[in-house]
Amino acid sequence: MRKVRVELGRDSYDIFIGFGLDRELCSFVAHAGFSGKALIVSDTNVGGLYGQKAKALLSEAGLEAELCLIPAGEKSKCLREMEKVITACIEQGLDRHSAVFALGGGVVGDLAGFVAASYMRGVPFIQLPTSLLAQVDSSVGGKVAVNHALGKNLIGAFYQPKAVFIDLDRMKTLPKREIYTGLGEIVKYGIIYDADFFAFLEEHPSEILALDPEILPHVIARSCEIKAEVVSKDERESGLRRILNFGHTMAHAIEEETGYVRYHHGEAVAIGMMGAAYISQGLGRIGEDVLERVRRLMQRLQLPTQAEGCTVEHMYRSIFRDKKTVNGKVNWVLMDAVGKVGIDDNVPEKMVKAAMEKCIV
Amino acid sequence: MRKVRVELGRDSYDIFIGFGLDRELCSFVAHAGFSGKALIVSDTNVGGLYGQKAKALLSEAGLEAELCLIPAGEKSKCLREMEKVITACIEQGLDRHSAVFALGGGVVGDLAGFVAASYMRGVPFIQLPTSLLAQVDSSVGGKVAVNHALGKNLIGAFYQPKAVFIDLDRMKTLPKREIYTGLGEIVKYGIIYDADFFAFLEEHPSEILALDPEILPHVIARSCEIKAEVVSKDERESGLRRILNFGHTMAHAIEEETGYVRYHHGEAVAIGMMGAAYISQGLGRIGEDVLERVRRLMQRLQLPTQAEGCTVEHMYRSIFRDKKTVNGKVNWVLMDAVGKVGIDDNVPEKMVKAAMEKCIV
Repeated sequence: MRKVRVELGRDSYDIFIGFGLDRELCSFVAHAGFSGKALIVSDTNVGGLYGQKAKALLSEAGLEAELCLIPAGEKSKCLREMEKVITACIEQGLDRHSAVFALGGGVVGDLAGFVAASYMRGVPFIQLPTSLLAQVDSSVGGKVAVNHALGKNLIGAFYQPKAVFIDLDRMKTLPKREIYTGLGEIVKYGIIYDADFFAFLEEHPSEILALDPEILPHVIARSCEIKAEVVSKDERESGLRRILNFGHTMAHAIEEETGYVRYHHGEAVAIGMMGAAYISQGLGRIGEDVLERVRRLMQRLQLPTQAEGCTVEHMYRSIFRDKKTVNGKVNWVLMDAVGKVGIDDNVPEKMVKAAMEKCIV
Repeated sequence: MRKVRVELGRDSYDIFIGFGLDRELCSFVAHAGFSGKALIVSDTNVGGLYGQKAKALLSEAGLEAELCLIPAGEKSKCLREMEKVITACIEQGLDRHSAVFALGGGVVGDLAGFVAASYMRGVPFIQLPTSLLAQVDSSVGGKVAVNHALGKNLIGAFYQPKAVFIDLDRMKTLPKREIYTGLGEIVKYGIIYDADFFAFLEEHPSEILALDPEILPHVIARSCEIKAEVVSKDERESGLRRILNFGHTMAHAIEEETGYVRYHHGEAVAIGMMGAAYISQGLGRIGEDVLERVRRLMQRLQLPTQAEGCTVEHMYRSIFRDKKTVNGKVNWVLMDAVGKVGIDDNVPEKMVKAAMEKCIV
């Protein structure tokens, strides 16, 4: 088992990573001092597979937990579904020391996290992420949110979990595409922070795609470590943390234009990272060789590098509605090398549109 | 002008209190570093009186602010109305450094505050409270929330404003009952923390009811100071802050049973404080004389001391759904003297019901 510590003062917590973590979860819960009632939020896919087992496990640890299932899919990340989960909290009798568990992918984690942040102004929250994307991205860093009809993640909070348990046994039933979509964020960590890790990914694409038990824990743990390091230094996203948004500006535009249906988040991020790399190259920050390394690694990890169903005009308008855009300035995260990025809030419109052109089919 | 500092580390802020604070507000905004767009949330009553003036004032300070009006009344404190205000934030083009102003009473402050806490995971928030209750209670301490159909303030956050401007010129148009309802919380500060302040209130009931310009600023400032002191020592309500809930356990039960319509919050709190005083006397913590002082002051300040339309059975069940109830234990805040209270989580059911009996007509 690997353990990654996220250092955030009194909000610090541990991420446990391994195959089979029942004992660790039980021991954590038994010593956490939660109230007796608890809620497990899951979706109609994951809940059917692992819901009853999680409930039984928490019962062993002394918690009377109810399952609350939301429909699988991004559409559940909305205020209406949030209100339903809060109704379940009230009906189950949760008090302000009762824990909310998120068992599922990013949608479940984001929604359950915002419920935990808001119910009675905050109750304990534990993440049990079951998708690769949630494991390496949304379960680290405390960003929780629901969507608004006019934009993604526009309603939310910074709210840290008490612990995260990444049990790799739960990955075995994941559809292939769910695995691939998590790889986009993993490649990102190499690009923004760690050239050695990028090289490691270049050396092991087939083992990674096969979820090799020797390679996978390291890939996930190193990704969590990098995110944890960045978040520890800048919890509220005022400076360094922005680098985690590498590829996300165009990704959000792509997701918006394609109705959040065609691409999984990690796939959109992969295309968005190509877009940021094109801008970086256009501005002379990186050479053609670096751009090519990024593209080749994406392709070897089965990630898309171009979007279907998008237009430059729509994408360009969309980036100004992004949360990261302040006073009309888009903060572009751009590459200087593999393992090194910087911010530029003054990229010419023409350059942005040229990069977008290359990212769409 | 009086100024009260709320000390909360890097979340510290000032409360400005006086007649006519336009200059102070302008100067604050001009130096705050907000983005150009802003939103003023108000209700259909207050917005009509002061909305355009606030907009013009902010324009002088360099902000392009839009007015967003919610229907007056407690019913607006819900997720649906919150979503509408967030839609206004998006349509007005607010980014994460754009300010949200709450111009109104407690409902406006609580709703706008939760919007500010959640929109893009948190934008700057400024309170312009126009009711006495909001001035001395909800604008200090960072509790923001909306209601759930099954209970009050069940969905919210701890979120501090950047500043609070209590402009007493805006009180002149308040209906009398709106003034009286604020007096309940003011009496509470005397009971829980400051015997001298309680005595001051006993000496000046008629000046207070007449909003005497010599007496009123002191009454409001001292109330804010007491709340600020308590909140500074315990922002997240894990210990001392609980004393602010004096009278609130029964108050919430009364409000729930009467559908949040019959009693204004401050009136329900006045009745709830009588209930807590009855329990305190029943347990021998205070004598009949202290109970009588509390009742007499309430009556001289035109506050109700008994509730119509309530039943002991419903009230008793209701207190176990309260946010302050943990693992089935109700944390009662009880009097030991005027100016001194303590917590008791083990009051016998019989004693509670006997006190409730005395609080209802």
